[in-house]
Amino acid sequence: MPDASAGSDPLHLGAVSTHTQTAEFDPPLQLALGGVLPAVTCGYETWGTLDPDAGNAVLVCHALSGDAHAARHDGADEPGWWDALIGPGKAIDTDRFFVVCSNVLGGCRGSTGPGSTDPATGRPWGAGFPAITIADMVTLQKRLMDRLGIARWRAVVGGSLGGHQALAWATTHPRCVEHCVALATSPRLTSQALAFDVIGRNAIQTDPQFHGGQYYDYPKGAQPDTGLAIARMLGHITYLSSEGMDKKFDVDRNAPRDVVTGFEKRFSVGSYLAHQGDKFTQRFDANSYVAITLAMDRFDLGRDRAALADALHAARGDGAQGAESGVKSFVVVSFSSDWLFPPQQSRDLVNALAHLDHPVTYAEITSPGGHDAFLLEDEIAQYGPLIAAKLGRVTRDAPRLRPTDAPVLELIRPGESVLDLGCGSGRLLAELRRRGHTRLVGVEVAQPKIIAAAARGLDVIDYDLNRGLPAFADGQFDTVVLSATLQSVDELVHLFDEMLRVGRRVVIGFANFAHKTLRDDYAKNGRSPRSEGAGGAYDHPWHSTPNRRFPSIVDVLSLIDERGAALHEAVYLDSASGQRIDAADDPNLNADMAVVVVSR
Amino acid sequence: MPDASAGSDPLHLGAVSTHTQTAEFDPPLQLALGGVLPAVTCGYETWGTLDPDAGNAVLVCHALSGDAHAARHDGADEPGWWDALIGPGKAIDTDRFFVVCSNVLGGCRGSTGPGSTDPATGRPWGAGFPAITIADMVTLQKRLMDRLGIARWRAVVGGSLGGHQALAWATTHPRCVEHCVALATSPRLTSQALAFDVIGRNAIQTDPQFHGGQYYDYPKGAQPDTGLAIARMLGHITYLSSEGMDKKFDVDRNAPRDVVTGFEKRFSVGSYLAHQGDKFTQRFDANSYVAITLAMDRFDLGRDRAALADALHAARGDGAQGAESGVKSFVVVSFSSDWLFPPQQSRDLVNALAHLDHPVTYAEITSPGGHDAFLLEDEIAQYGPLIAAKLGRVTRDAPRLRPTDAPVLELIRPGESVLDLGCGSGRLLAELRRRGHTRLVGVEVAQPKIIAAAARGLDVIDYDLNRGLPAFADGQFDTVVLSATLQSVDELVHLFDEMLRVGRRVVIGFANFAHKTLRDDYAKNGRSPRSEGAGGAYDHPWHSTPNRRFPSIVDVLSLIDERGAALHEAVYLDSASGQRIDAADDPNLNADMAVVVVSR
Repeated sequence: MPDASAGSDPLHLGAVSTHTQTAEFDPPLQLALGGVLPAVTCGYETWGTLDPDAGNAVLVCHALSGDAHAARHDGADEPGWWDALIGPGKAIDTDRFFVVCSNVLGGCRGSTGPGSTDPATGRPWGAGFPAITIADMVTLQKRLMDRLGIARWRAVVGGSLGGHQALAWATTHPRCVEHCVALATSPRLTSQALAFDVIGRNAIQTDPQFHGGQYYDYPKGAQPDTGLAIARMLGHITYLSSEGMDKKFDVDRNAPRDVVTGFEKRFSVGSYLAHQGDKFTQRFDANSYVAITLAMDRFDLGRDRAALADALHAARGDGAQGAESGVKSFVVVSFSSDWLFPPQQSRDLVNALAHLDHPVTYAEITSPGGHDAFLLEDEIAQYGPLIAAKLGRVTRDAPRLRPTDAPVLELIRPGESVLDLGCGSGRLLAELRRRGHTRLVGVEVAQPKIIAAAARGLDVIDYDLNRGLPAFADGQFDTVVLSATLQSVDELVHLFDEMLRVGRRVVIGFANFAHKTLRDDYAKNGRSPRSEGAGGAYDHPWHSTPNRRFPSIVDVLSLIDERGAALHEAVYLDSASGQRIDAADDPNLNADMAVVVVSR
Repeated sequence: MPDASAGSDPLHLGAVSTHTQTAEFDPPLQLALGGVLPAVTCGYETWGTLDPDAGNAVLVCHALSGDAHAARHDGADEPGWWDALIGPGKAIDTDRFFVVCSNVLGGCRGSTGPGSTDPATGRPWGAGFPAITIADMVTLQKRLMDRLGIARWRAVVGGSLGGHQALAWATTHPRCVEHCVALATSPRLTSQALAFDVIGRNAIQTDPQFHGGQYYDYPKGAQPDTGLAIARMLGHITYLSSEGMDKKFDVDRNAPRDVVTGFEKRFSVGSYLAHQGDKFTQRFDANSYVAITLAMDRFDLGRDRAALADALHAARGDGAQGAESGVKSFVVVSFSSDWLFPPQQSRDLVNALAHLDHPVTYAEITSPGGHDAFLLEDEIAQYGPLIAAKLGRVTRDAPRLRPTDAPVLELIRPGESVLDLGCGSGRLLAELRRRGHTRLVGVEVAQPKIIAAAARGLDVIDYDLNRGLPAFADGQFDTVVLSATLQSVDELVHLFDEMLRVGRRVVIGFANFAHKTLRDDYAKNGRSPRSEGAGGAYDHPWHSTPNRRFPSIVDVLSLIDERGAALHEAVYLDSASGQRIDAADDPNLNADMAVVVVSR
């Protein structure tokens, strides 16, 4: 039975934060799929102070079940969902930045959504709420941006659905975004993720209390809470990793919490899900859940590399405004145990951006936290510095160069674009930047080094060289550098070909495993040789060395020849003394390091 | 409104196969959790002919939604769910074996379940059906076994829930099982798998048409089909891999099939799920779904190694009957992309069995098929030979020994138990078996070799030696052999210690990378050496060798010393001539292979 008295609070949802402000926009909002909202409201919160030139604004975008309350405003405030990232002195530093977070269009926490009143009828939109997209969410945020007097966000930052918004900002309003930070997200959902959403919506829409979406006149107990709770339970499983769930629930799997619920609470994981499902219905509207998940499901930057590149090309903002008008750089972060938005999807984004020569930093954070990892304190401590660096908190050190760096640097011409494979914490790249190079990209696989390089303000991509260089286009860089890394690569021949494809020139600095200190030991004593020299590359016991390949200079020169590459220069040196070894002086015996320049 | 006229077919489910026979059992069935079923029916099918001594019977156990119709009985018959495995000339050869498959207790396809009539009331049990366990399913199968006059199954074979039944047979009726074949299964569900079951049951039990499980008097359209369909949709996602779903649905994700359904059919994956969900309600009873998933969720052979070993110890069947009375061997198979019953759970089973010194063969099949992979033809082609071998179809070849095998074999004492690490296709083990050794175990990581070794009737375990030997107990084997494998292992020092822990003696045959043919090349020409000899171990280019470690004989002898092991014997040889090299004749220079015997 409809309960007419409930009309004043048809959603029956808990109040939003007292910090949530409201902006009303009168002009009709034309939606991407054809619908029109005659007027819209945007609920939002802000932190920090907007500079007079409005140049310090950062937009934070929330995920499916989030809202505008991203962080505490003061010590007495309720916790925000991203407190570890946003606040005074934090990666998104509210002492320096004016941070904005708004409730998404279609939501139920302050912004216009299916539970809002349709002015034409004076009743909630319900099922009549027009279909929305991520682009429409951005359109509402753009109105808010204009209202606040902001012309360009220093960064748009979001995870999951929030990452979709950040990507939509970058591709639809490139002039308004300096840095796009997309965490735990994807160009579009996997079929599996889409299938979970389908089931969640089926649970809601087949709930007999859904009433085709027109349930607002019914009292709370007669609304589709069962379906919404089931959708939420299912969501929870997909936000955690299997490993994380076992850790949380397996020790006492048969000791459920005694929650009050109409759902099964037999196992500890069951009572947890029941509690989460029930709790969610107190603060979320089923129609919003349907509308927002559909927007996510429709989000699609393209299925393959070509389509994705087409979509991301818009981020350059070229055309009338010139290339400088677009997004300056991207930061993409994925999490190893996230199976809802798996790292491969972030790599697809990164590869397409790198192929377009668009500046991008990418890190895959090792974490058992699943999709939710982007919200966790330990993981924020890992990726936070990447965002802080983009926002200007950069390590401006003068890294100490190694003896073998000098000849490599010498062989790179002024101003060249450089791809440094196995860049470590960015020692060479930082030096090249100091020398005035502007287009510099690093590739590294060790997570702490990636973060250290990014903290230096360098663009570095988390990448396993054994996969070749599919992210990069033919001849994309003036010079590709492989320094002190060759001995670590399994799929070396493939990488070799790939370097020659991507770089107009390739500079390879490597340890010579036929140096005299090694040969004597081996030939005379019959021991796996070990010695000082070559920047430490020789100094590993045979049974535990991280080295995978042990070539001599002659071996490498042979490979160059075999692969049809031309050798342009070769420098041989004794790294201990820093002395060059003349080519006539048997460098294969006397030099512990060599640097060669090759091309095809 | 209850529909009294529907009483004659309260389940409204499609008829079972005409080949399904029925066995009625009068004595009450005492259930493990305390309930009692006054009388029980078992629906079952059989293939082939039972030998006069009843010694050729094989029991096949079905998974959650399966039934007794595992295979076609003739060309005109409906397809069975395991046609590729069971039939004339197939791995489970119905020309040789009498194959039995019965519908599980609690099911709705011929055996007693919640839809059956409770004799006390004359109405379906419904919610009054007592709680059942996997052990109870086995009890009903045991009654059928007795009725058929079978004392011992040649094998009990099953995947998923069927694997749980096979494991329950092995641990509760070890005398009745010769070989236990458990596919895509686990000692107990992961918390994640359990959570999916919880949600499926919640969908069913909160369906307003569930009526507390007493819905049989209602017409079909008024039964809890919505909840059951949602549970089935969710199940479907968990049976496929994400990769498999993308392959199936991603190319045309926005082109759904035009199915007639009350569910969402927006995306192609959505229309597929809707179709599968709807179809399922035509042949399955919601109460059975609840009862059977609960039985799976309760199945628990133990959380950790100790508990698991306790449970599996029962399979030995020792006690009054002697050790010979128990399960002769286990076959465990997992599938790489199965995230519902992940391979690690199978490894837990295998490790516990191996630790108990119980014969076990294990293969992890590389497949994109997800949990359902055990039902797929390509995958059956992979693992089928493992089952066929246990059923007697064994490759009885005389493998050609390599020159380096002779000294290894010579150092193994007659009758010793042997663990062969990196056993390949079982060359050494087959020879040892020919020589009369009985306790032989192989470890191998290459899938085709595992299958080839298993086809020789050897017990071989899929295992990465870099993880050490956690499956095995201290001093479990007289001799641990590592032949022509040392150079492939990354974590060599750890493996070395582990071999010394598990074997009373360790025999290591290895290539000497300081052989004179290599030294000359390297020392004089400064090239990464390459040569004939050492069984091919030298013959790889530096940039592509699969070898990871390159020790000399002196290096290995040093390591033995460093790790506190005693060297008992050493044989050096020139593998080309087969000649031994005397210890006084500088074997480190003149021998390309060495075999050492060590212990700690």
